[in-house]
Amino acid sequence: MQELEERIREQGVVKPGNVLKVDAFLNHQCDVRLFDHMGAAWAEHFNNKHITKILTIEASGIGIACVAATHFDDVPVVFAKKAQSINLDGEQYVTHVYSFTKQKEFPVIVSKKYLNAGDRVLLIDDFLANGKALNGLIELCESAGAIVEGIGIAIEKGFQGGGDALREAGYDLDSLAIVESMDAETGAIEFRH
Amino acid sequence: MQELEERIREQGVVKPGNVLKVDAFLNHQCDVRLFDHMGAAWAEHFNNKHITKILTIEASGIGIACVAATHFDDVPVVFAKKAQSINLDGEQYVTHVYSFTKQKEFPVIVSKKYLNAGDRVLLIDDFLANGKALNGLIELCESAGAIVEGIGIAIEKGFQGGGDALREAGYDLDSLAIVESMDAETGAIEFRH
Repeated sequence: MQELEERIREQGVVKPGNVLKVDAFLNHQCDVRLFDHMGAAWAEHFNNKHITKILTIEASGIGIACVAATHFDDVPVVFAKKAQSINLDGEQYVTHVYSFTKQKEFPVIVSKKYLNAGDRVLLIDDFLANGKALNGLIELCESAGAIVEGIGIAIEKGFQGGGDALREAGYDLDSLAIVESMDAETGAIEFRH
Repeated sequence: MQELEERIREQGVVKPGNVLKVDAFLNHQCDVRLFDHMGAAWAEHFNNKHITKILTIEASGIGIACVAATHFDDVPVVFAKKAQSINLDGEQYVTHVYSFTKQKEFPVIVSKKYLNAGDRVLLIDDFLANGKALNGLIELCESAGAIVEGIGIAIEKGFQGGGDALREAGYDLDSLAIVESMDAETGAIEFRH
């Protein structure tokens, strides 16, 4: 998606340790017009699928998923939680994943009420690196008997392999920008096309 | 807002300890069509204000704020973070607030890059109870020299006093549903009109 690649080139900052900061428009300050265009791109890519629910994970996925849902007939958006809370009760699907950005393991929790057998799910998230968070969401869908119809990602760090593994496993993955390489010294970013 | 009150009556669950669970449509599963109507209601209420930025707090505020922003000329949405991360660097505005739902203190962090003197801010959040989270956001705005033009809340628990204190302090607060009382025994919910 050219618009997203341009924004990454203009406002993204490459940091040591494979960190690409895009907090100017994606995951701290949010450009909702860009989110709307991203949602339109996913709607076009997945237009042969019958999506009945969008599943994402707090926090950065939520805004993108909610705006994107307006391009999928306003299907419900469920966001997995990363911590227990008194707002979470009843039976839950839970798995545990390791976070690259937080450098620790955390739970991924969805109430059983909101993920069901027969749901045809589009997974959405801001980043895909090694795929640990996404694989956690896929695991929750499998536990529920829900079908993962597709995966919409804003920025895939292609060199970290998570996306290619998901494609090889047969998932319909639409990453709107795939970073093939990036260099913290020079700030250079190369995209896969 | 009648639609929101009806959804609370239909799907809200009153729990002991002043907990109102609305995870069916507001803060775990998200009804983005309802969010859109909420955004339209705030746009009408604040139509005499020139809003240049929306500020919310992760996680439940993000989806509501991003959908609402489409009714405010797609102004940038900034969400305050509740934990440090390697994605947060540079100078920050930080305060600390106590969470009613998580029952612990947490930091509220916004990068100085995304909150500036002259910003005319609309604060948005899903819940207002005692007002601690909102007061944290107001404090960050004051630190930045940003102007709080208004506050849009989905559900105010009126009996907990945070909303009335903000009104008395002169803030233009638009809570779309104000729960005057609720009863965990009977499930009864009374709204203020």
